[in-house]
Amino acid sequence: MVVVVQQVIDVTAAAADGSAARRRPARVPVPPPRSLLSTVGAKLKETLFPDDPFRAVAREPAGRRRALAVLRYLLPCLEWLPSYSFAKLRSDVVSGVTIASLAVPQGISYARLAGLDPVIGLYSSFVPALVYAALGSSRELAVGSTAVISLLFASMLGPAASPAEDPALYASLAFTATFFAGAFQAALGVLRLGFLIDFLSHAAIVGFMGGAATVVALQQLRGFLGLQHFTHATDLPAVMRSVFSQSAHWLWQPFLIGVCLFVFLQITRYISKRRPKLFWISAAAPLASIIVSTLLVYLISGEKYSIQTIGSVKKGINPLSVKSLLLSSPHTWLAARTGIITGIISLAEGSAVARSFAMAKNYHVDGNKEMIAFGAMNMAGSCTSCYLTASPFSRSAVNRDAGCRTAASNAVMALAVAATLLLLTPLFRYTPQAALSAIITSAMLGVIDVRAAARLARVDRVDFCVCLATFLGVVFRSIDVGLVVAIGVLVLRVLLSVARPRTTALGKVPGSTAYRRMDQYATAQATPGVLVLRVDSPICFANASYLRERISRWIDDHEDQIRTCGGESLRCVVLDMGAVTSIDSSGTGMLEDLKRSLDKRCLQIALANPGSEIMRKLDKSKVLQIIGDEWIFLTVADASDYAHRNCKIATTLQSVLSPNEMV
Amino acid sequence: MVVVVQQVIDVTAAAADGSAARRRPARVPVPPPRSLLSTVGAKLKETLFPDDPFRAVAREPAGRRRALAVLRYLLPCLEWLPSYSFAKLRSDVVSGVTIASLAVPQGISYARLAGLDPVIGLYSSFVPALVYAALGSSRELAVGSTAVISLLFASMLGPAASPAEDPALYASLAFTATFFAGAFQAALGVLRLGFLIDFLSHAAIVGFMGGAATVVALQQLRGFLGLQHFTHATDLPAVMRSVFSQSAHWLWQPFLIGVCLFVFLQITRYISKRRPKLFWISAAAPLASIIVSTLLVYLISGEKYSIQTIGSVKKGINPLSVKSLLLSSPHTWLAARTGIITGIISLAEGSAVARSFAMAKNYHVDGNKEMIAFGAMNMAGSCTSCYLTASPFSRSAVNRDAGCRTAASNAVMALAVAATLLLLTPLFRYTPQAALSAIITSAMLGVIDVRAAARLARVDRVDFCVCLATFLGVVFRSIDVGLVVAIGVLVLRVLLSVARPRTTALGKVPGSTAYRRMDQYATAQATPGVLVLRVDSPICFANASYLRERISRWIDDHEDQIRTCGGESLRCVVLDMGAVTSIDSSGTGMLEDLKRSLDKRCLQIALANPGSEIMRKLDKSKVLQIIGDEWIFLTVADASDYAHRNCKIATTLQSVLSPNEMV
Repeated sequence: MVVVVQQVIDVTAAAADGSAARRRPARVPVPPPRSLLSTVGAKLKETLFPDDPFRAVAREPAGRRRALAVLRYLLPCLEWLPSYSFAKLRSDVVSGVTIASLAVPQGISYARLAGLDPVIGLYSSFVPALVYAALGSSRELAVGSTAVISLLFASMLGPAASPAEDPALYASLAFTATFFAGAFQAALGVLRLGFLIDFLSHAAIVGFMGGAATVVALQQLRGFLGLQHFTHATDLPAVMRSVFSQSAHWLWQPFLIGVCLFVFLQITRYISKRRPKLFWISAAAPLASIIVSTLLVYLISGEKYSIQTIGSVKKGINPLSVKSLLLSSPHTWLAARTGIITGIISLAEGSAVARSFAMAKNYHVDGNKEMIAFGAMNMAGSCTSCYLTASPFSRSAVNRDAGCRTAASNAVMALAVAATLLLLTPLFRYTPQAALSAIITSAMLGVIDVRAAARLARVDRVDFCVCLATFLGVVFRSIDVGLVVAIGVLVLRVLLSVARPRTTALGKVPGSTAYRRMDQYATAQATPGVLVLRVDSPICFANASYLRERISRWIDDHEDQIRTCGGESLRCVVLDMGAVTSIDSSGTGMLEDLKRSLDKRCLQIALANPGSEIMRKLDKSKVLQIIGDEWIFLTVADASDYAHRNCKIATTLQSVLSPNEMV
Repeated sequence: MVVVVQQVIDVTAAAADGSAARRRPARVPVPPPRSLLSTVGAKLKETLFPDDPFRAVAREPAGRRRALAVLRYLLPCLEWLPSYSFAKLRSDVVSGVTIASLAVPQGISYARLAGLDPVIGLYSSFVPALVYAALGSSRELAVGSTAVISLLFASMLGPAASPAEDPALYASLAFTATFFAGAFQAALGVLRLGFLIDFLSHAAIVGFMGGAATVVALQQLRGFLGLQHFTHATDLPAVMRSVFSQSAHWLWQPFLIGVCLFVFLQITRYISKRRPKLFWISAAAPLASIIVSTLLVYLISGEKYSIQTIGSVKKGINPLSVKSLLLSSPHTWLAARTGIITGIISLAEGSAVARSFAMAKNYHVDGNKEMIAFGAMNMAGSCTSCYLTASPFSRSAVNRDAGCRTAASNAVMALAVAATLLLLTPLFRYTPQAALSAIITSAMLGVIDVRAAARLARVDRVDFCVCLATFLGVVFRSIDVGLVVAIGVLVLRVLLSVARPRTTALGKVPGSTAYRRMDQYATAQATPGVLVLRVDSPICFANASYLRERISRWIDDHEDQIRTCGGESLRCVVLDMGAVTSIDSSGTGMLEDLKRSLDKRCLQIALANPGSEIMRKLDKSKVLQIIGDEWIFLTVADASDYAHRNCKIATTLQSVLSPNEMV
């Protein structure tokens, strides 16, 4: 191996005096070898700790201050508590009360959707919110149950235990699934594997959430029409069959209440959207609908008109549920599966929301720490009669608009919900189910993000297809099928992009030394006798043989063109390695094969702008020797000029020197 | 969107006169939009027909000549038959007879390894070889059964039907598995999905074949020691337990024969390796061992010394076996699974061999057509009492060394094997099994490629780990576990490389306009006030949030450094997009977020050298407008110079223009 220092001098020396550089262009240095340990260490650090989470700790001098920094790292509430002021408290109380007025009706609605006792929905806004206030590092996230996860619970756990016939077993299953979801989320965070969540792309999430929201909204037809029986399936055809087969039992009274409230909620949403300052109108609307409809049903004695109501709701805050966790029963595996799937989905939604809010206000959210917070709040929740909570986008947006300053707004919400649990639950007795359906349907319309889908269709059609396939999978088959479709398509897409990298021919942009794609830059001109090819991907096992064949096809095409159109015959192929960010042993083998096969065709090969990893691998695999040190260049312009001037001689020389190779 | 033509003029105009170009560097054009159909068409063509297989057909004028070209494409033997000469025939006969002398002993040995009647091994060198001679496009490949696949058959089908107790059912299972393997191979070829095979990297194949060869060699201890009972497991510990628990039944007679023959075979292999012209010595050695040992056993009446022999072998060529295919039995699924796994492995080995031979002689092999040929030969074989055939590397290498000119050598081998089947089978009656074990063990030593593994350890340690993990998985667990380990590690590696792309800081190489990695080029210097970052991968959903965070960490680090070491404060971040070969909607979203967050920090962002796909996506997603047309540059040097000169003004201007953005 040539010594690096010498080569670095070469670069400067060659670059310093103009004319000499013309003849011998700057060389590309081979970096010094690194030990396996330092390579693996650097890789692991970049994979698992890309955001350098201990930066703040490392900055502090050792001793007490560093211990405090560690504590601050572990308990993010210590970051804002010391500087907490009355002004911040006021903001947080306002926003906390606002989201509580949303949390109460949503909690009851979603718990019913999950097939659970409504009061469990209220419990779920109490303990988890307190835990998140202590551990969460996002300022705006509001914690609570979400509609999509509630429906997933019902559709995955329902077949094992009927919510109507054995509510105790069903609730145990839900708590157990919540426990597993929390444990899985915390494990992902502790092992710093949060990046796995990134493989659920934005497009897939838009399609998935849209499909799930559609499915949830369809389920509300039951409440709107006052139906007693309803299908367990979630797909559109089954729901439609179920609804229309019972057309004789449709009731107009709940339908009237539901539609009136739905229209009311839509109007308030529209007002708040037009005037962001009036955010409280849409935030308070669900609670207002609940109050108005409950009063109405109470006054007209709703039972007479067969209007279904929620019924009595237990008083008192969360009872313990540790004993109902089913950690060794035949259903444990089902609960674990449900927990893992719902845990992933809630993380995917939650981390997207947290990141986008943090980005907007320019502070940093540690995704892995956020996962630990989610995991802790769900594990704590599963022991205190809560089911899976996440951070619904709508509630978090209200929290932000209401001006929350710290995670304390979640604690305020928790206290408000606890007050409701202790004092107000008897009032929900007359709340009509149609009101809950109206609230859910209205919230779901906000989740179906038609504008994002339209944007995808405009910007990136492949992404749009992923989004559409996921949506259709969810709506027409089931929620899990949609998820599997999404993940399958995304992994296939990544693999395909690696297996079939782009290769392009470059030409010189006149008047500059830049070589650019000839299909992009109409003015770029090919150098006579030289074919400059750019490989747009790492060269690895998955694409080495493809690239070998593709490059010879480029050469064939070029020679065909010269045969038909005339021009200087080909003497040298320059490979622009600028975008080849890594190479493995199949890749170096490919270059070796390519060199030999070009030798047979009396063509010279030159490499331009290889990165340091590439140079190291080429050197170690002896391919550098085979190609020849002098055919590696710093820039495409160097390579192309040098080849244009020296190639004929080089080829002739070589054919004299190694006649055996020229069979 | 700005019109393309205008921008192309910009480029030339700006580049033409020097001083003007200083002030307004060349612009990057947005390519014209393409229709969805043409994009998808181009993608599909590149994915499925990367080698442009119909090139030869398209070149011919329409009519009879084109029809002939199509026929030539479908039947590759028509390519060489018209120009077949007596000289070629002579070469092919010599090489055909040579590989036949290898095929007979190997066929018998491998069939016994697979738990099949030895004669099936001979059948398998007859029909499939004829089919390949007509359909195969490689000149050197020699067709036959292989040891690894034979052992896989035994270990996968053995549990369902015992070869000793129900040989008829077992043979039916093997034919059915062969049929499925052929159908799967042909389907891959017809659907042009051959690239899926590429995902089995060279490193994984080296490890897998080495492990499988070790396992096969271990199985031969049974023949060497003359054991009656033997374990069905293939892993090292189980085999060793089985061997040593029977130490009382070890026989010295077969051991003596086996070891003598093994040493003889190794010596001939060594001679042929040292003098490639004496290739026939090692090629004829197995047949010679068979003849000598058979004679010996016949003369000394081997039964007296309890030497196990093959026993009587049926006379006559392949009987039909269509009726024994089990296409609707409880075992069908097992046979299909066995067929698919063995089909993939034989393709992976076969296509690697064919490609490397073709590359060495500079002709082209169409991988997908080759798969169709393999599939056809196995489907035909399954109907004529053959089991799975592929192209063992050793036999193909002998075929090449023996000077074969066309695929006709396979036909010659088939005829020679047929003659053996018709005339010589009774002679195998006294062949000792120890001789077969010696032949197999000797062949397996050739398959364990220690040099390739050592090369991997030197060149690419990650590849070496893949190789080692696969090897250990096969040797210590089972063949399928090894395969699953290999595929799992490889897919994870690809996904990780996409999820965690490299970002590097660039500096200017003095005296040139090239910007290179500062950690690679010691002389590269940073431009004051400008941070040039290079993203080394497509930006997509899997890495968008990582990159967002990583880039802000680069900026933080840079500002930290300025704070401690002094220097001009940062004003502009230039992203070198040269290696960003594609971007999806998450990627454009990431750039938009980045721009907004840099605005908040009063930093300008500039993009250098984006490709045409990137420009199109940026334009469609309006991110181009948000960043500003004037901040997109052709080269990093342009971007860096422009930023260095104009950035202060631009930032100030912007803070005046949009005070709302600067919260």
